[in-house]
Amino acid sequence: MMAEMKMSDFLDRLSSPAPVPGGGGVCAYAAALGMSLGSMVANLTTGKKKYAEHEEEIREILKKAAVVTKGLASCMDKDAEAFEPLAKAYGLPKNTPEEIEQRTEVMENALCAAGEAPLALMKEILEALLLLSRLSVIGSRLAISDVGVGVQLCKAALNGASLNVYINTKFMKNRRIAEDMNKRAKEMAQRGSKMADEIFEEVAGTLCGKK
Amino acid sequence: MMAEMKMSDFLDRLSSPAPVPGGGGVCAYAAALGMSLGSMVANLTTGKKKYAEHEEEIREILKKAAVVTKGLASCMDKDAEAFEPLAKAYGLPKNTPEEIEQRTEVMENALCAAGEAPLALMKEILEALLLLSRLSVIGSRLAISDVGVGVQLCKAALNGASLNVYINTKFMKNRRIAEDMNKRAKEMAQRGSKMADEIFEEVAGTLCGKK
Repeated sequence: MMAEMKMSDFLDRLSSPAPVPGGGGVCAYAAALGMSLGSMVANLTTGKKKYAEHEEEIREILKKAAVVTKGLASCMDKDAEAFEPLAKAYGLPKNTPEEIEQRTEVMENALCAAGEAPLALMKEILEALLLLSRLSVIGSRLAISDVGVGVQLCKAALNGASLNVYINTKFMKNRRIAEDMNKRAKEMAQRGSKMADEIFEEVAGTLCGKK
Repeated sequence: MMAEMKMSDFLDRLSSPAPVPGGGGVCAYAAALGMSLGSMVANLTTGKKKYAEHEEEIREILKKAAVVTKGLASCMDKDAEAFEPLAKAYGLPKNTPEEIEQRTEVMENALCAAGEAPLALMKEILEALLLLSRLSVIGSRLAISDVGVGVQLCKAALNGASLNVYINTKFMKNRRIAEDMNKRAKEMAQRGSKMADEIFEEVAGTLCGKK
């Protein structure tokens, strides 16, 4: 598993020209960091008298956030797995018309799979944003900046993942499927960004004394 | 060093109620991930005939990016070090007027130091954004989405770090110093966000066939 790497080694490997890890795995980890910050805030809220009325919901969020973080971290490996066939397809011969035809078909499937991985990641990030959204309202005020950071990271991961959809669909021949994938990516990116911006404004407003 | 941790262990530790790592360390690592993606793109560009005219600049960027990534990763530790005195100050006794006075003074200095750490991080992130900006123009088109992801992460880290300034200055007594720190944070956040948005639009436009 990629998350078993040391953080410094991951930076080194990422900097290299090796095909993985790349932007996809980074987006998955960044979102996992964002959700973990949410867990931290929930852990700083649970058991506190001041927030007793939300205790049950906070515990529920803690459970869900652990599942989402795990799901996001596993997307690092799924992204790498989805990219592998594409890297192989690029290496296929294209000397005869038959080879070109076969390469095109293999490539098409590989591009589609490589584009579906970030779409699955985006769906998971929206789950993280929903939990962070609740924490921005009911989480400990002392750690509210961490909700804001978590939201920023999830938004970055969401928009980053959308690019990883577009760079794959761009080369697909079947434009109907490609456009459908683009549409799903765009819709999730817009919905999540709106949610993230609203939470961030709320947090920044609280911190800058506007509220 | 914090970056010596395994990625999965970091997520676990982050999720816990322990004071560090927190939002500050996460922002530093997220920006380091963003800059490393820039290095990857530069490494995929160097030595390629198609980009030969930019070879010298790409090599220069590779050198600078390695320094910036190292600086960003070290900000993880600096943030934790700056937070430690603050965590201790919160624990000081406040039973007598003398104790309260002493606690207030220690706290004020600790808050100021804890707020300066994210400001130093923000300055470093702006350096990363400048390098990514150039890569969005002269980097390999095949990896352009990775520049976009890197930019998103740096922007998230920049805005996240600004919150870490505000949450410390909020409790400072010396409002002149506090407002000056807020002003520096706001200026860097706005300048960097604008730069990031422009690069991202450029990348997304290229990918979605608008350019």
